[in-house]
Amino acid sequence: MSNHKFQCSSCSSSYEPSPTLLECDRCGSPLNISYVTQLGSDLHPTRWSGHPIPLPLDHQKDLITLGEGNTPVVQLNNVKNRIGAEIYVKQEYMNPTGSFKDRGTSVMISALKSFGINELVEDSSGNAGASLSAYAAMSNMKAHIFVPESAPAPKIGQIQVYGATIHKIPGSRDATTEAAKAFVRNNNLVYASHNLSPFFIEGTKIFAHEVFREFGDHIPEDIVIPVGNGSLYLGMWKGLCELKESNQISRIPRLHFVQTEAVKPIYSAANNVAWDTSMIRETRSGGTAVGSPPRQDQVIDALIRSKGSCTTVTEKELIDWQKFLASKEGIYAEPTSATALAGTEKLIRSGEIGKNSRILVPITGSGLKDDQPN
Amino acid sequence: MSNHKFQCSSCSSSYEPSPTLLECDRCGSPLNISYVTQLGSDLHPTRWSGHPIPLPLDHQKDLITLGEGNTPVVQLNNVKNRIGAEIYVKQEYMNPTGSFKDRGTSVMISALKSFGINELVEDSSGNAGASLSAYAAMSNMKAHIFVPESAPAPKIGQIQVYGATIHKIPGSRDATTEAAKAFVRNNNLVYASHNLSPFFIEGTKIFAHEVFREFGDHIPEDIVIPVGNGSLYLGMWKGLCELKESNQISRIPRLHFVQTEAVKPIYSAANNVAWDTSMIRETRSGGTAVGSPPRQDQVIDALIRSKGSCTTVTEKELIDWQKFLASKEGIYAEPTSATALAGTEKLIRSGEIGKNSRILVPITGSGLKDDQPN
Repeated sequence: MSNHKFQCSSCSSSYEPSPTLLECDRCGSPLNISYVTQLGSDLHPTRWSGHPIPLPLDHQKDLITLGEGNTPVVQLNNVKNRIGAEIYVKQEYMNPTGSFKDRGTSVMISALKSFGINELVEDSSGNAGASLSAYAAMSNMKAHIFVPESAPAPKIGQIQVYGATIHKIPGSRDATTEAAKAFVRNNNLVYASHNLSPFFIEGTKIFAHEVFREFGDHIPEDIVIPVGNGSLYLGMWKGLCELKESNQISRIPRLHFVQTEAVKPIYSAANNVAWDTSMIRETRSGGTAVGSPPRQDQVIDALIRSKGSCTTVTEKELIDWQKFLASKEGIYAEPTSATALAGTEKLIRSGEIGKNSRILVPITGSGLKDDQPN
Repeated sequence: MSNHKFQCSSCSSSYEPSPTLLECDRCGSPLNISYVTQLGSDLHPTRWSGHPIPLPLDHQKDLITLGEGNTPVVQLNNVKNRIGAEIYVKQEYMNPTGSFKDRGTSVMISALKSFGINELVEDSSGNAGASLSAYAAMSNMKAHIFVPESAPAPKIGQIQVYGATIHKIPGSRDATTEAAKAFVRNNNLVYASHNLSPFFIEGTKIFAHEVFREFGDHIPEDIVIPVGNGSLYLGMWKGLCELKESNQISRIPRLHFVQTEAVKPIYSAANNVAWDTSMIRETRSGGTAVGSPPRQDQVIDALIRSKGSCTTVTEKELIDWQKFLASKEGIYAEPTSATALAGTEKLIRSGEIGKNSRILVPITGSGLKDDQPN
């Protein structure tokens, strides 16, 4: 008997866990993991030294790892001088493939492997594609990664070096997703989608538990996260809820999110402003450039319940912050991470975040994987 | 009064610590740090949870950090299947700028800052240059990095993004070093050389202490390190000696090193084979491509005292291993790290390392910083 079930994020219908079930049979909404017993609650993330964390695995040996997580937290003094608030960053680019996605991939691929799955399909030209390819490689699984034909060569290069089979698809980003889904159906394979798989967030939630281990009762009042699909934002929310439910924290920090002016579906929906994918413009912030995020309603729900706020930033603002982080703090972040810092500055200026607040921001991915800022 | 002095690695002459003293006034040999009191022995590396480690700083607050160290150790199952031995890697590319150099830079720049130094010169187009630039940026120091005009654009790019001033020098690698030294003399600046500064190894030695914290009494019997200047090899040696002297370990592992066929000064000297810099050939293994390593005698001394062995590998072997690590273990290592694995395979085949031995190898740097293997 498994220690968890799948539960619909909208209508709460529940299902037996399955590697192929990615949405609710009744209402089509994305699924979450819900723990039904304490079985497996003695499982520990890699190198973990803290309270037990529920994970959707039967045995500790099922946990496939490249050493993800346990990233350091650093206080930024020059950023403090610039914006006047106490800022901590968690160095998520110091993960095995250079982004926070490794947290989700580790748990997702561990769960899929324990179902006996050995061949996977994913669509991502970015961090998630590279992450899945790496974990598939070391666990002897075959990975098919669908990418837009127009994706930058260096990003495709990292996916390729891990030995995944690359499928280049002409047309829009959505066309790539559709091609991946068709390939899954036609070949009876597993769609290891970092957006849809309920296992993925079970990995990213460990981020929240690490923040608690780092700060204890002095957990920052405000946490600001760049959001595309929201896999880190929702992981943070789930982890904080687990900490609250087990009485380890007494209050949940405010969870803010940032998108760009170029792609802002969740920001727009949260503010009741009309927006559709025809309004997508080009952006350097690849991690937030998701036009139709399937878990949008969940993100907005967490925003409201955590009393967070949201904002958008321009290309100029995020590139400026990418340069500032590198040249004043020695942190070469991907543009997506700079989006979060640029948003933090705006939220402070607008008064949404108080100047006396302590603020935590993840540096989601490495600048080495992107074109150099100029 | 400082807790340490400088001591000549050859004639044992000792000196008061100084930011500008880089070789023995009497015999010209490189200098090491020797601790004279227990002052400061309660200093701790970042996020350290272990026994005290002596560091050449007066106060904990003097330690400048981007979150370096505490890298995970991962066991490689597909490598085990290939070479038949139990192999562990320590993921040193999961450091802030993508290489183990951050360990040395953190301590070196902390020490220099505590002397009141605010402007530094270094010559390196590789990991050390990027590392110094990053730590200089976040501690508001000005960095001048001298690089060969022929250095690859992406490597120069990483140095540049951290805001260092790049000085491109035509001619050989030695010409770059000479230009840096002349600039230091003419402008009365500090040469923050990762090869010569005695502070650098005080950072890399923490690698050894972490290996002990990870394995305890079951520390691997054999450790294999790629060597150019030997800053990680000598750090490992120093850390192991500290552990032995404080009775924390009863035996010191064998410390093996690997160079390439293209650049093999220390291997040749250790084997009494004639070699000179006119024999340098091109190599992808940038981290081992040092023609005249100033600490060569120290490396050979540690090799003998630890009962280690050494070998060289070809370009084909190291590129093959770089691909194998990525596509079978999900580890995208720089070619320099693959050199160590290729060498490990050779040392096992030749019987220098027993098949029943447990072996530790550092993955020194990220493949993302290099050209993609093809």
